[in-house]
Amino acid sequence: MAINLKPLGSRVVVEPIESEDVTPGGIVLPETAKEKPQKGKVLSVGPGDRDDKGNRISMDVKVGDVVLFAKYAGTEIKVDGKKLLILRESDLLAIVE
Amino acid sequence: MAINLKPLGSRVVVEPIESEDVTPGGIVLPETAKEKPQKGKVLSVGPGDRDDKGNRISMDVKVGDVVLFAKYAGTEIKVDGKKLLILRESDLLAIVE
Amino acid sequence: MAINLKPLGSRVVVEPIESEDVTPGGIVLPETAKEKPQKGKVLSVGPGDRDDKGNRISMDVKVGDVVLFAKYAGTEIKVDGKKLLILRESDLLAIVE
Amino acid sequence: MAINLKPLGSRVVVEPIESEDVTPGGIVLPETAKEKPQKGKVLSVGPGDRDDKGNRISMDVKVGDVVLFAKYAGTEIKVDGKKLLILRESDLLAIVE
Amino acid sequence: MAINLKPLGSRVVVEPIESEDVTPGGIVLPETAKEKPQKGKVLSVGPGDRDDKGNRISMDVKVGDVVLFAKYAGTEIKVDGKKLLILRESDLLAIVE
Amino acid sequence: MAINLKPLGSRVVVEPIESEDVTPGGIVLPETAKEKPQKGKVLSVGPGDRDDKGNRISMDVKVGDVVLFAKYAGTEIKVDGKKLLILRESDLLAIVE
Amino acid sequence: MAINLKPLGSRVVVEPIESEDVTPGGIVLPETAKEKPQKGKVLSVGPGDRDDKGNRISMDVKVGDVVLFAKYAGTEIKVDGKKLLILRESDLLAIVE
Repeated sequence: MAINLKPLGSRVVVEPIESEDVTPGGIVLPETAKEKPQKGKVLSVGPGDRDDKGNRISMDVKVGDVVLFAKYAGTEIKVDGKKLLILRESDLLAIVE
Repeated sequence: MAINLKPLGSRVVVEPIESEDVTPGGIVLPETAKEKPQKGKVLSVGPGDRDDKGNRISMDVKVGDVVLFAKYAGTEIKVDGKKLLILRESDLLAIVE
Repeated sequence: MAINLKPLGSRVVVEPIESEDVTPGGIVLPETAKEKPQKGKVLSVGPGDRDDKGNRISMDVKVGDVVLFAKYAGTEIKVDGKKLLILRESDLLAIVE
Repeated sequence: MAINLKPLGSRVVVEPIESEDVTPGGIVLPETAKEKPQKGKVLSVGPGDRDDKGNRISMDVKVGDVVLFAKYAGTEIKVDGKKLLILRESDLLAIVE
Repeated sequence: MAINLKPLGSRVVVEPIESEDVTPGGIVLPETAKEKPQKGKVLSVGPGDRDDKGNRISMDVKVGDVVLFAKYAGTEIKVDGKKLLILRESDLLAIVE
Repeated sequence: MAINLKPLGSRVVVEPIESEDVTPGGIVLPETAKEKPQKGKVLSVGPGDRDDKGNRISMDVKVGDVVLFAKYAGTEIKVDGKKLLILRESDLLAIVE
Repeated sequence: MAINLKPLGSRVVVEPIESEDVTPGGIVLPETAKEKPQKGKVLSVGPGDRDDKGNRISMDVKVGDVVLFAKYAGTEIKVDGKKLLILRESDLLAIVE
């Protein structure tokens, strides 16, 4: 999928990675029983916020990173029927390596 | 349409781009069933906020950019019967390219 | 009308410009059915706020500008029976040219 | 009246100027029907707040100025049975000249 | 009374000065009908807050000053059965001279 | 009791000093009738917060100081069955000398 | 357990240390009767926040430290069925030595 979103400031576009739909006992859960995902893949990275002198502050995440973020953080958008999130880098908690 | 609004500070004037009115099944939705638009075209760009020294911080968006923004962000105004939004650049999430 | 108000800091005195009282169908609306005005003329401009060094930050609007501002922004005062608004420049959204 | 209050920081002591008690039709309004005054005379001016270097930021109002301020701003005190207000200069909207 | 409290930062210890208990008509008011005092005597003064460089910002009030402060400001403590207040200097409104 | 807690930043570890359990009339109060203590002994002091340049801001209290603090300030922890408080130095009101 | 989380900014990954499940009287408490843990072991440490100049502010805790933190601080995540916490260093209260 070609991503054509250029996030502004320190924002990143993240594609949520859904957890598996099957519980240990093999029961498929309907959508409402699942928590909103907390893990996602970085699809696009903004240029960074500007510091007091107007210089860009470099970003710590890069395209392809798998990141953790708090539930409900960011803004949900739909691109080609897919749910994506736009988050500020400061809302990202950790990179999964 | 000639836009004669000069936004102040880091504000931009955005013309919302409505999503299509027809659902996949072909049913035309009445206005109240549609979400407020999250996409828009930049019609006018302010000079930028001033930093601590009084210098302008340059803007990252330009006239003609298609931008995403959170629902309910900004102030709605009517110009010639058209609904426009005045938003701070920091309320813009991403540029659609 | 001679305006004898000297706004403090980055404030401006604005005279609201009422929208027309007649709807497209020709019905005159009573006052309560009208929205508070969002457009106004700048009557007086303050000297600007001071930066960290105590220097004035110059103002971007000038007397005579027609400006847009969010509904309910600022403080309403009455001068000679006329309703005026005192707003901070940061509450002004755009200059109408 | 000798005012013996030395306001601290950027505060000023203001004596509210009541509007006239008589409506256009000549009816004397009881106290509760009147709005709290928004106009007052500056009786005393503080030395100004300190900036980051510890220097005083000079005040823009002086003793004797008639000023406008938002309803309910500041702290009401009673001196010799008289109601006075102590306000921060930033709560003052404009000087009436 | 020897005060043995050394306030920290920009705090001061204030002993509230109660208003008289007798109304103009000579009626003694029970405690609950009286407002909390707004006037007090400075018993002890802290060393001042530190600025960004770690230097102390000098205090504007000194021991013995009679000061005004907003109702409910500060923290009430009891020392030897006496009610005292610890307030930040920024909560003091004015010095009564 | 050996305290083995190293507070972070500008925090201090304080051991609350309970007021006497006996009222003037000699009645022993049950625990719920007593206010939470406002006085305590400093057991451990953090290295201080960092200023904008990354240098430590030195602390004003030291181990052994008896300090006053607002009710409910800080975080209560239990060490060896003892209730201790971890507070920021800015939550301390005064040193009792 | 190999931890493969790289916290961002001044965040740390902490593995909560549960208190013992047995009360003094020897009764095993069911999970809901236990408080959320306030003690944990640092598994991973972020690079630190950036100061105004873009330089990293060094961290005060290191991998292996046992730390105290306020109940409910941070974000709970599950890694391999284990509950971990991602906290900002500023949410850590003290290091247990």
